Amino acid sequence: MSEDLGITTSKKENIGEWYREVVTKSGLADYTSVSGCFVLKPLSYSIWTTVRRGLDKLFKDIGVENAYFPLFIPDKLLEKEAEHFEGFNPEVAWVTRAGNSELDEKLAVRPTSEAIMYDSYKDWIRSHRDLPLKINQWNNVVRWEFKHATPFLRTREFLWQEGHSAYASKEEALKDKKSVLDAYQEICEDRMALPCVRGTKTQKEKFDGAVNSYSLEHLLPDGQAIQGPSFHYDGENFAEAFGITFTDEDGEEKNVHQNTFGFSTRQIGIMIMMHSDDCGLVIPPRLAPTKAVVVPIYNNEEERKSVLGMAEEVNEKVEDCRIDNRDHKTPGWKFNEWEVKGVPLRIEIGSNEVEDGEVTLVRRDTGKKTSVKVEGIEKKVKEELEEMQKRLYRRAEEFMEENTRETEDYEELKRIIKEKGGFVKAPWCGKQVCEDIVKDDTKAKITNIPFKYDKPEDKKCVRCDERANHWVHFAKSR
Amino acid sequence: MSEDLGITTSKKENIGEWYREVVTKSGLADYTSVSGCFVLKPLSYSIWTTVRRGLDKLFKDIGVENAYFPLFIPDKLLEKEAEHFEGFNPEVAWVTRAGNSELDEKLAVRPTSEAIMYDSYKDWIRSHRDLPLKINQWNNVVRWEFKHATPFLRTREFLWQEGHSAYASKEEALKDKKSVLDAYQEICEDRMALPCVRGTKTQKEKFDGAVNSYSLEHLLPDGQAIQGPSFHYDGENFAEAFGITFTDEDGEEKNVHQNTFGFSTRQIGIMIMMHSDDCGLVIPPRLAPTKAVVVPIYNNEEERKSVLGMAEEVNEKVEDCRIDNRDHKTPGWKFNEWEVKGVPLRIEIGSNEVEDGEVTLVRRDTGKKTSVKVEGIEKKVKEELEEMQKRLYRRAEEFMEENTRETEDYEELKRIIKEKGGFVKAPWCGKQVCEDIVKDDTKAKITNIPFKYDKPEDKKCVRCDERANHWVHFAKSR
Repeated sequence: MSEDLGITTSKKENIGEWYREVVTKSGLADYTSVSGCFVLKPLSYSIWTTVRRGLDKLFKDIGVENAYFPLFIPDKLLEKEAEHFEGFNPEVAWVTRAGNSELDEKLAVRPTSEAIMYDSYKDWIRSHRDLPLKINQWNNVVRWEFKHATPFLRTREFLWQEGHSAYASKEEALKDKKSVLDAYQEICEDRMALPCVRGTKTQKEKFDGAVNSYSLEHLLPDGQAIQGPSFHYDGENFAEAFGITFTDEDGEEKNVHQNTFGFSTRQIGIMIMMHSDDCGLVIPPRLAPTKAVVVPIYNNEEERKSVLGMAEEVNEKVEDCRIDNRDHKTPGWKFNEWEVKGVPLRIEIGSNEVEDGEVTLVRRDTGKKTSVKVEGIEKKVKEELEEMQKRLYRRAEEFMEENTRETEDYEELKRIIKEKGGFVKAPWCGKQVCEDIVKDDTKAKITNIPFKYDKPEDKKCVRCDERANHWVHFAKSR
Repeated sequence: MSEDLGITTSKKENIGEWYREVVTKSGLADYTSVSGCFVLKPLSYSIWTTVRRGLDKLFKDIGVENAYFPLFIPDKLLEKEAEHFEGFNPEVAWVTRAGNSELDEKLAVRPTSEAIMYDSYKDWIRSHRDLPLKINQWNNVVRWEFKHATPFLRTREFLWQEGHSAYASKEEALKDKKSVLDAYQEICEDRMALPCVRGTKTQKEKFDGAVNSYSLEHLLPDGQAIQGPSFHYDGENFAEAFGITFTDEDGEEKNVHQNTFGFSTRQIGIMIMMHSDDCGLVIPPRLAPTKAVVVPIYNNEEERKSVLGMAEEVNEKVEDCRIDNRDHKTPGWKFNEWEVKGVPLRIEIGSNEVEDGEVTLVRRDTGKKTSVKVEGIEKKVKEELEEMQKRLYRRAEEFMEENTRETEDYEELKRIIKEKGGFVKAPWCGKQVCEDIVKDDTKAKITNIPFKYDKPEDKKCVRCDERANHWVHFAKSR
């Protein structure tokens, strides 16, 4: 296999360069003439489509409906939500001309759609009978980051879903928090094989404009944390800014309570980084568009015929399978290519295999070889794929567990962050000043306050001497 | 029903105002603060999703894969396809600023993606083994039209699919012409109940940059023609402009041959205009997200109980059904509301119905009432929906046939265009000068050269005295 096609950098030695190679050589994505913007090639777009269908199904059960709002947001609407928008302002791409004319008012290319959606919500919502209103968009957004771009993980344009819902009360709004976070967790864990830590963001780290933010946090192989999908309870903040009110059953005019929630193509980057290896891409089988590839091996025309005959038979039995019958490539070359491209199972068929009525299954993740009868192969393939799916998740979970270290001692916290990375579970008083000092000392932030930990009993804050109110995770984050 | 909710304009008297009312009052779309841009509300987005799934399935059989390319196109790439792009230039929205910085090079918001896609194709395609390459995008595009906007039919931003394929030869490229046009026709006719005329565009009316364009043309109720989805054989035009070449089996470097094809949300507008009526929206049942609504009718609590019991029973049996059990609206009000919203079947259940074990089905398109036993209602509902689907198509087809008039006489052609509208089938020599003169005299253009007509024998061009080479359709077009 030529160097052009194989992965030449090791994940351990240079994860950034390794990632770039895996993404481009596997055919997931490609660079373009627009700096910071990438092509999602059919392989990654197909993964995204499967994720989208999965989430849509779960959203439907929550009563969320899809719609589409304009790409452009007039400047004057953005001013209404100045506080929320301030964070986005430096990253907004502005349309100022159309054809040969200057526009009277410049238009933002949406970095997120609160402003344009809530401008409609204020007209659509009149009475308590119009609530709840739960609308989601699958769209493209633009955030003109000036930092170095990385496919999927940090791009100037990306695809996502943004859910925006409105309710008559805080209680109703918060009821959907669990449903949406459950949906996100199901997609992350069951499809993408990504374990995650659910929790509350601190006030310092929350989304501008939210009352409280909640996130799924992941740990990358280099020990850095990265935020996955998130959910925000916005209280009456946007209702105030946009005038979204309703008349309740007693005829009283009230503000709506709102949630926003999003899941983006960044998640594909996290998945690639977590599971792939020095041979190339590894895709969790439930998201792989091609689940198995048959590579026929023969030395002459007679063998070719019988081998291809069996290949066809296997191909018909196995779902989402394909045969690589290219004559101008050797089997070894094909093995490598499909490894780079991350097809979960390789099925080798040579003339020996034809004689025995058996084929060889090779797992992408472990390289494990199994001889399997053609009779009933479809069942065996399904089992291997399920086992691979579970193993990828288990391995990632073990990695996260091994890299979550608990301490109550500030010097140790600093040492772990510096030398080992990962999550550091530590008690925290809840004051931003301590959070700020830790960040200043270590560059680590509080990723979230995990739901899974009980309130600390009789612990002191890892940074100050005051009583701790939360167990939190500190980590350096991407 | 209040005037606010019902349609107040007649389709016959003022089709434009009627259309605007139907679109907004049915909940299909809404106006926004961005002039010329609309919200696709859940009802229309759901229709679009069903269309998209249908087309995706047909595209898969043709070997077309989905991908996603950047929204922005650098100015210098557009210059490479100056001829093709000239037509779009006056309509391009330009991003010139990001955050507080002026960009070094302005970026076009894609009006179509040839430039950004072919810039990648030139790198992806090296050998005949990389061909054919068939990629489709579902995305949003922007064309900053300065004419009066109309939801779905003429909007500054719209959703569509754009297919872009590359082949080793003209023959291969043209083989896909039939497959793609078949796919479009199937969606138009079988789902949207829209009859269409397939044919070749004249050189004057073809897509800039294409060698030949092909279209599906529809006739609107006001007698105006409108172009539906289209397909373009681009020959080597873009290959020349972008340097997309491949090495053939003999080692010779050659240009690829290309096709482009698109289907947009405009088609939803055509569908609404065709089938809807003075009571509101009419949706072909195969595209209606809600296919039936149960309206319970009762006068007291006892009746309420038994009627709602039966409503539940019906609701469980019938697919995509819902019950309107709002207490604060009268049955009559509900009838009207669901008519405006275009639900294909209404199921009325009163206490008489409960006694007889029968319900009343009311068809949205004809108002026809049928008494149906609850036992086996799901079958009867399916039959009614199928009959409605077919009737909508048949009615639209009859309308198109009645409004397609044949003449060989120029004075008559002018009279028909002026007084009756519709398609005028007439013989044409093939010269642009005649086409131009007809347009000048009548404002009618050649919509296309329908495939269904044989070459005229011994006919003179309707405009000049020369021998006619084609039967064509003249029509005023939107």
